[in-house]
This record gives sequence, structure tokens and C-alpha cells, in this order.
Amino acid sequence: MDDASPTKVTLVDIARMAGVGVGTASRALSNAKNVAPATRARVLRVAEDHHYVVSPEASRLARGNTGRVALVVPHLSRWFFGSVVEGLDSVLRGADLDVLLYHVGGVSDRHDFFDKLPARRKVDAVVVVGFQVEEAERIRLETLGVQIVAAGGQTATYPSVHIDDHVASRQAVDHLIHLGHERIAMLEAIDPDQPHLPSTRSPAYYEALGQAGIDIDPTLVVTAPWGGEDGAASMGRLLGHPDPPTAVFAHSDEVALGAIRTLRRAGLEPGRDVSVVGIDDHPLAALSDLTTVRQDPAQQGVLAGQMLLGMLDGRTPAEKPMTVPTELVVRGSTAPPRPRRTR
Amino acid sequence: MDDASPTKVTLVDIARMAGVGVGTASRALSNAKNVAPATRARVLRVAEDHHYVVSPEASRLARGNTGRVALVVPHLSRWFFGSVVEGLDSVLRGADLDVLLYHVGGVSDRHDFFDKLPARRKVDAVVVVGFQVEEAERIRLETLGVQIVAAGGQTATYPSVHIDDHVASRQAVDHLIHLGHERIAMLEAIDPDQPHLPSTRSPAYYEALGQAGIDIDPTLVVTAPWGGEDGAASMGRLLGHPDPPTAVFAHSDEVALGAIRTLRRAGLEPGRDVSVVGIDDHPLAALSDLTTVRQDPAQQGVLAGQMLLGMLDGRTPAEKPMTVPTELVVRGSTAPPRPRRTR
Repeated sequence: MDDASPTKVTLVDIARMAGVGVGTASRALSNAKNVAPATRARVLRVAEDHHYVVSPEASRLARGNTGRVALVVPHLSRWFFGSVVEGLDSVLRGADLDVLLYHVGGVSDRHDFFDKLPARRKVDAVVVVGFQVEEAERIRLETLGVQIVAAGGQTATYPSVHIDDHVASRQAVDHLIHLGHERIAMLEAIDPDQPHLPSTRSPAYYEALGQAGIDIDPTLVVTAPWGGEDGAASMGRLLGHPDPPTAVFAHSDEVALGAIRTLRRAGLEPGRDVSVVGIDDHPLAALSDLTTVRQDPAQQGVLAGQMLLGMLDGRTPAEKPMTVPTELVVRGSTAPPRPRRTR
Repeated sequence: MDDASPTKVTLVDIARMAGVGVGTASRALSNAKNVAPATRARVLRVAEDHHYVVSPEASRLARGNTGRVALVVPHLSRWFFGSVVEGLDSVLRGADLDVLLYHVGGVSDRHDFFDKLPARRKVDAVVVVGFQVEEAERIRLETLGVQIVAAGGQTATYPSVHIDDHVASRQAVDHLIHLGHERIAMLEAIDPDQPHLPSTRSPAYYEALGQAGIDIDPTLVVTAPWGGEDGAASMGRLLGHPDPPTAVFAHSDEVALGAIRTLRRAGLEPGRDVSVVGIDDHPLAALSDLTTVRQDPAQQGVLAGQMLLGMLDGRTPAEKPMTVPTELVVRGSTAPPRPRRTR
């Protein structure tokens, strides 16, 4: 709003007006140690008088780091990933770091990112959102002095922030058991890009049923990728079961919402006819009256960002991995089972 | 995977091995003009032999631009914004540009971005996703030689890519009219951060009803922010109307999905009792059997990215604004009106 645009004054101008060399002016402005206090004060006063803004770029180059952090994110259009990035961005940019975005669609994109990054040394740190970095890649980054943090996703060998998938899954399955269900199906979700990773949400299902004395029926477990259409198809398979379930534990809300569409198309009402519970508390879960286990991905992003800032300052994270709590949110899609009809 | 890490060879090494000065080596590698062809060939051969990767940073500083583009994005956790960014990122990073992310939550964040950016001159271009830049801010960027492009959102005075909101809205409202509806409500959505901007989706509603000879009933228009809960509340107001609508045109799918929850809670079935149409084709629209007008935000991001690359190469966009087509997707939430009961 001011005609005296701050970009018009250069470091050379500041140095001249303060009566010092350019090197001294630069060191004074970047708070380096080898500048006399009186000189530093004079340079800072001139800079302030002329609305000179220190280029973070320039001062960082002097300190030998880039001031840049890379966020590596698959599926940015999905609520979970976008929310984690919102949280990360608020913390990292609040610390005046540049946030470089790397959207990686599939697994080859992910490898490509780690292949190309080291040759360029363009970032101080990498935050991976919701996927696992392979050990060889992690070691490569470590060798280059690039920090790594995971936000969301499963437990890693590097510092990470996520929910406890086992606890969250127990909250969901225990809720169905407490309502009195015994025919409980599971819509197990896998990452098609990392199918070798065992689901961290499945063991709780077997554990909870076992502890409640309910027989495990493996035909009630359907495995498919994360995604609503996959959930819809999996629910269709369960409806064709000779002894169909009265309740369904879906690994995510999107999977659960797909299952609900299939139920509705089959003339069944979620809650009344078949109970459905998800994990996430996606904004549209509330709009679909879906019972779920709430997680807060933006908070995971904030905590991962704070963890990373500490690491860039040379501190070791207090806890790694750090888990953030989840909570059951009961809505209309779950209810006690209806009395069994004889066929 | 290779022990001879490309980061170990420096520009100084390359220059020495090619028998030239560092400046010449740098100019040869950055494809500058004032290098003899034989010298350039020698430098490139040495660089290739030693797997030397030119730092894009360094070569760009030589050309006098930053190689960086800022994406300014509100509401990153929402499907529309995340999808646009996915499309943008694929094109811009494909052109080897660094993509800097600026998530701006509210309107003060947006002003803050434009206030701080010029003083730092850190980017060649700014892409704003789904919101309007004020004219004073646009002029400031222009003065600094920073290009600006809008992806998604309304028509702007700068180059932009978006859907034709009027056409999309006509597709939605005409569909309801063709089904035979005459009591058609509108859930009008506004950006609470920019409430002074008139909705570009509302005029089509008045135009379509007028052309069909249907009387405009202003009590059937409810205005609220974009968002599912707002849609749910607005639908509640319409259900209390003495002569409630038989069909609802919602400005977005999220608003429409909120309206559907209210209908279901009131014991009404979307499609059978009240028709609902949205705009977007949000992934969860299909899961809710919502009739909608499909747009492709990732494609808008791709086209905006390509437009920007052309501008950075000094070309003027062929069309500005560029509109991308939309199409009606009919699902279960719309049907002809039921015969009127006498009260």
C-alpha cells in the first residue's frame, strides 16, 4: 500500500548507508556472530528505516541450509491427506520455512521422488504423508543430512505422528459387540501401491471377537483397496452371503459410505437392518449419519510439523512414534441387531 | 543405489576436469549463449561421465528467475481444492518448477500472503485456487513481474480456468424443470470470506424459471455458506415452509448432501419425495446416489498449469478466461414430482 516499495532498497544500498562493506551488512542482518554490536545496531537501524526485508533465502544460504521442507503427498484430493497438509503447512510456514509440495500419485512417483531428491539437495527435511518410506530410501536421506518425519500412516522406523490403529479399530469393533452383534463382517482396506504391508486395523477385529467368545468366520472378511466404490462392491459380496452379517466394521468412512449405498440400493436401512461403523469422521460422515471413530488429521499435521521443527533445531523427539487419541462417535448407522427371523 | 553419489562431484571439479573456468562450466551447463560449441560439448561430456546433476537452483539464478511457483489455496482438505492442486502440481513439477504451497485459511491469511510476497521476490508466478484476488493486489504482482493465474473460482481480470457457472447451473435447474417440477427451491452458497461477491450460480436459476413461465418465489431461496452442515440447516428451513418445494437446486454437492440428511431425518426419501440436484460430482455424490452436474477440478488444475507455463515462456493465453465443460449426471436423487396431495 506504500509507494516506497521495500523491494527497491538492496543490500548494497544498506551497506553504503551504514558505512560498512556488503559482507558486514549481510552478516549483521543474518545475525552472524562476527559483527561488532555497534555495527550490527547501525545496520539494523538503516535497514529498518528503509523497510529493508532480509531475504530469508539469502540469510539461509549463509547458514548453510535451504530453509525448505518437502511434503510428499499421495491422494491430495482426499480429505485425510489434504487435512494433514493443512496442519503441516500452518506450522512450517509459521516458522518461515518454504513448503515445497510433491504430489505423488502412485508408487513409481514415490520412488522417483526419492531417486531425484538427493542429487539436488534442495530441502532440509522431507515429510511423508500417509505412506511408508522404504528403508533404503530412508538411509539415503539420512546420509545426506535430510531429516524425515511421517504424518499419518503406519508406525515407521523414523519419527512419526499418527493414530493408534489398533486402539481405533477396537473402539469400532467393541461398539458393535456391545450393541449385541455376533455376525460382524470386516471390510478390510489395503493400499494397492503397498499391498505387502499388513493392515494395522485388522488384528483388533480378530482380537475383539476372540475376547468376546465370538467365532471367527473368515468368509465375513472382504479385502479391497481404500475407496468408496470398493466398499460398495465388497458390501455387495457380503449381501450374497448365505448367513449375512448384522453389522459391518469398515476400515474407513469412505469404505463405509460405499457399503451404505449398497445397503440402501438393496432396500436395507443402515442402523435398522445392518449396522455400519467406519474410522475417520470424514466431514461427510456426519452428513450420512455414519457412526465412526474420529481422528483429527489436521492435528496430526500440526504435531508432525512441530516435531520436525524441533529436529531441525537439533533436538531428538520426546516420543517417536507419537500417537494422537481417537474417539467413538455414535450416530444413526449403528443399533442393536434386530431379532433373527427364521428362514 | 550407486556408491558414486552424484552429489560428490561439484561444479569446480567439472570445470577442472574440462580444463575451463568455473564460470564457463556453469554457462555451458546452463545452456547460456556465450560458450563455444566445442567447449560446451567438452563440459557436458565430463558432467555426464561423472553423473553430475545440474542444480536447477543454480542454473535458474543465472537466468534471473526463481523457478518457483506459489499455489495459494484455501480449504485444502476439501475435494475441489485438493483436486485442482493435484492437477497443477503434475504440470508444474513436470516442467521442473518448484511448487511452493501456501495454505490460506481465511481472508486475512490471503491478504497476508500478498502483503509479504513482494518483499521477498521468491516466485515467478502465483496460482490462486478458487478465490478472487483484489485488483490492488493483482497490480502489485504485475508491477513486480510476478505472473498470476486463477484455477477454479469465478471469472477474473487475470488469466483463469474454471467452469461456466451459468451453464452448469442451467444444466441443474433445467433438469428439474424437465422432470415437471414447479416448486423449485435454491440453496444459494456464498463464501463467508468474500460475501460481497455475487453468486455466479444464482442468475441461471431465475433465468431458467422465468423462461419456463414459473413464478419466482423468493421464499424458496435460502442463502448460507458453502458446506454440508449449512445445507442441512437451510433444508430444515425449507421443510418448515407452508408450501414446501418438490425439488431443490443446491449450489454444490456438499450443500446437497447436507440437504439430503435433513430430508432423511424428516422421513422423506430423496428422489421419491423431494428431488435434489447439486454441482460438482464429488466422489461421495456417487456414493449417495446424488444427481449432479459434473466438473473436473484436476483438469482445471492441469489447464491452468499449462496456461501458466506458456505465460512464463512469454506467450499470451489464447483464451482468458478459459472455461471447461460440465455435464449432467442423473442418479437416484431426482425424479418427476409426486402428484400433489390436497391438504
